[in-house]
Amino acid sequence: MQKFQNNFKIFIAFSFLILFVGLTACKQDQQNRIITLEVPERPIEQENVLQLRCDPIPTVRVAFIGLGMRGNEAVRRFMYLEGVEVTAICDINVNFIEKTQKLLAENGKPAALEFTGKEDWKKVCELENVDLIYNCTPWYLHTTIAIYAMEQGKHVAIEVPAATTIEECWQLVNTAEKTRKHCMMLENCCYDFFEMATLNMAQQGVFGEIVHVEGAYIHDLRELNFNPPGDYGYQGMWRLDYNEKFKANLYPTHGLGPVCQILNIHRGDKMNYLTSMSTKQFGITEYAKNRFGEDSDYAQRTYNKGDMNTTLIQTEKGKTILIQHDVTSPRPYNRLHTVSGTKGFAAKYPIQGIALEPNAHHFLSQEEMQKLLAEYEHPIVKEVGQKAKEVGGHGGMDFIMDYRLIYCLRNGLPLDQDVYDAAEWSSLVELTEISVNNNSAPVQVPDFTRGDWNKLNKLVFMEHMKEQNQQ
Amino acid sequence: MQKFQNNFKIFIAFSFLILFVGLTACKQDQQNRIITLEVPERPIEQENVLQLRCDPIPTVRVAFIGLGMRGNEAVRRFMYLEGVEVTAICDINVNFIEKTQKLLAENGKPAALEFTGKEDWKKVCELENVDLIYNCTPWYLHTTIAIYAMEQGKHVAIEVPAATTIEECWQLVNTAEKTRKHCMMLENCCYDFFEMATLNMAQQGVFGEIVHVEGAYIHDLRELNFNPPGDYGYQGMWRLDYNEKFKANLYPTHGLGPVCQILNIHRGDKMNYLTSMSTKQFGITEYAKNRFGEDSDYAQRTYNKGDMNTTLIQTEKGKTILIQHDVTSPRPYNRLHTVSGTKGFAAKYPIQGIALEPNAHHFLSQEEMQKLLAEYEHPIVKEVGQKAKEVGGHGGMDFIMDYRLIYCLRNGLPLDQDVYDAAEWSSLVELTEISVNNNSAPVQVPDFTRGDWNKLNKLVFMEHMKEQNQQ
Repeated sequence: MQKFQNNFKIFIAFSFLILFVGLTACKQDQQNRIITLEVPERPIEQENVLQLRCDPIPTVRVAFIGLGMRGNEAVRRFMYLEGVEVTAICDINVNFIEKTQKLLAENGKPAALEFTGKEDWKKVCELENVDLIYNCTPWYLHTTIAIYAMEQGKHVAIEVPAATTIEECWQLVNTAEKTRKHCMMLENCCYDFFEMATLNMAQQGVFGEIVHVEGAYIHDLRELNFNPPGDYGYQGMWRLDYNEKFKANLYPTHGLGPVCQILNIHRGDKMNYLTSMSTKQFGITEYAKNRFGEDSDYAQRTYNKGDMNTTLIQTEKGKTILIQHDVTSPRPYNRLHTVSGTKGFAAKYPIQGIALEPNAHHFLSQEEMQKLLAEYEHPIVKEVGQKAKEVGGHGGMDFIMDYRLIYCLRNGLPLDQDVYDAAEWSSLVELTEISVNNNSAPVQVPDFTRGDWNKLNKLVFMEHMKEQNQQ
Repeated sequence: MQKFQNNFKIFIAFSFLILFVGLTACKQDQQNRIITLEVPERPIEQENVLQLRCDPIPTVRVAFIGLGMRGNEAVRRFMYLEGVEVTAICDINVNFIEKTQKLLAENGKPAALEFTGKEDWKKVCELENVDLIYNCTPWYLHTTIAIYAMEQGKHVAIEVPAATTIEECWQLVNTAEKTRKHCMMLENCCYDFFEMATLNMAQQGVFGEIVHVEGAYIHDLRELNFNPPGDYGYQGMWRLDYNEKFKANLYPTHGLGPVCQILNIHRGDKMNYLTSMSTKQFGITEYAKNRFGEDSDYAQRTYNKGDMNTTLIQTEKGKTILIQHDVTSPRPYNRLHTVSGTKGFAAKYPIQGIALEPNAHHFLSQEEMQKLLAEYEHPIVKEVGQKAKEVGGHGGMDFIMDYRLIYCLRNGLPLDQDVYDAAEWSSLVELTEISVNNNSAPVQVPDFTRGDWNKLNKLVFMEHMKEQNQQ
């Protein structure tokens, strides 16, 4: 009896403890209200790859996996770079292979090794004569190929987004830290002229303390998405597929990249949490009706992708980032690129505008602004901007990006964009989906540096000559 | 022993039940995640005041309470209206009273009854010879005076925002429904030229299904807020006070009003919930340092108001509204006024632009756009726009607003803006505060019509002549 009574008291106490802990945990989560995701612990032997330097590579041997619209264009741009060799090309579409070999021949380059099997990207990653994998495959292969490439000892450049889930983001980070190979997402918009000028201005304090920034990917892609596979369509119409499945922001990096650089994300500040909201879907169905008929399969399907997704991000230092995504509404192209600080303001669309104290209530005249943009032209743009405009690729930014990638690899310098950028900017794909699926509840943005977000104090474009003088 | 064992079993069962219920309740709230506010039940004898018609008033006798920057300007505009008499004026500042009497005299009008005591606004509301109270007092008196006015049998027009708490919003709605007197917020921006043209275009289907809209109040008011009381300052610096206390969007209506009209809020659609995010405060302190010195009291104070507040609202029909508020950053004025639909797009700042299918990827030329705006000039603007530009008041919109207010009162017609507009658009003051204080958690927007949000199908500007033909 005594034993029973003792057990009973223990049981009562335990029950109340369970109840108390359970309700407290709920309440705390309610008070905090932020949906948090688990952060995998960094293995004890692993270190961060901030400012990662690898051995210089005098001639960078590149393998291109994926030769569609982006891949083929990339090979074309590489014809204008020094210190590179295109040693291998890979695509399941034989026509693309042919097209690329022709391009190489036209430029007096030797033919590249060809690979056309569905799993051949592995063989390409295993090749001896490859230093860099340049990955322009459909999104669902981005992370898979990148990880394998790094595990085979290759550096990898990945088209955007580098990952489409948080799990993939962590795979990229962990693999990059483990292998200590470069993993750079090919965020070309960071290299556009107005973006680089405003970054330069921001870093020199022209806008004062940066308080609020905006970026977007607003680009009506319905025609492209519904085109059959080929030169102006997607293999297996994979991009339409993503619009059927995803509700939120499946392509956040073009708008987010440049403004994250301005805000020094993981170089002094970090994204803490976000909230995201989508409209319902109207535009895809409207387009499908017009193009294929009201009774067509395309017009009758259910598409999850809300036309306009808007996301708000809060940083540790109390700044906010607004990011939008709309690829299905009839409206002009817009990446927003807006910077608002304590001393001035800049915006890129629909027309470029800059306003500075003490007259910040009015935009500078065209003349004043051009003068200012010339004064703050980024050193990189001074160096290679003219050639970039001649080579082309979204007006030149693509070439500047490739130029910097190869330059840094050749000289053993840290790349302009690191794996944490790739993970952070890509993380919105899943994070916005989670928020939208929870009535726009706030969702924590993981710290992919696992505590090292404050070790650097701004983005520096490393240069070989000035290496000794870099901070 | 048996009894004890039975009690024990009951106790175990009960404990588990409590635990289960507690955790389930938590989980449900977690799944829903929207902070909900209680909706007061409508008293059984009360009905909605949608399309409220009151007896025509051939000559509207107006009392102006609050003769500062807005009030005095309003009296000036009223000098140009027919069928009105300014019978009483009220302000604690005797200079303002003098200034207004002078204005009346200069316009050949008889002197108005004067009131200058702190509580005299009550006497004004009780006056026999007053039909309409025109309320331009500081925000904290808006609802208080409006309620009292309606209870004394007067119609009331209230400057923005009509209320600063949800409780005040319900007070306005309940009092308007109980007394069946007009209660209109003076949201002038609804009457601006581009706003009225785009409303007209939207209602005629030019933009197709409206999917996403944007509005804002971006207006650097730091100089005004820090000015001492007087002609170019606020009585007791009440507006600076609000910036010290509120974090979020304390002035949402200028951007929200016009886009809510386009979306048919409570005329076929309704706002369901919102999420709101603010930056920290940087701009007020920066300004105070520059104007008063780094060690000044103003520069040392804590101000709650984050410079930029961004709010996202989801509607029942799956549309979204983006609303911003920034009155403390150095940047040009901007109300956004952006409309995105399935057939086209329009935006007002920094330059007006319209894009329509089948060429919606490019904005119309200036010439094409002016032609379109002329074609879709709103009938109201056709009627009174020219005179409005001559009378002035933010370029004319203030006069169109007053013109419509008096016209509808004189003819016994429903007003263009009803008490539900006033409540809905003002509700953001507190709702955004709640969200910001809860890490941007989603907050429900009350249905101020209590179920009648779908009874009308769009906003109609009522006209006397065409009354019989109205839907």
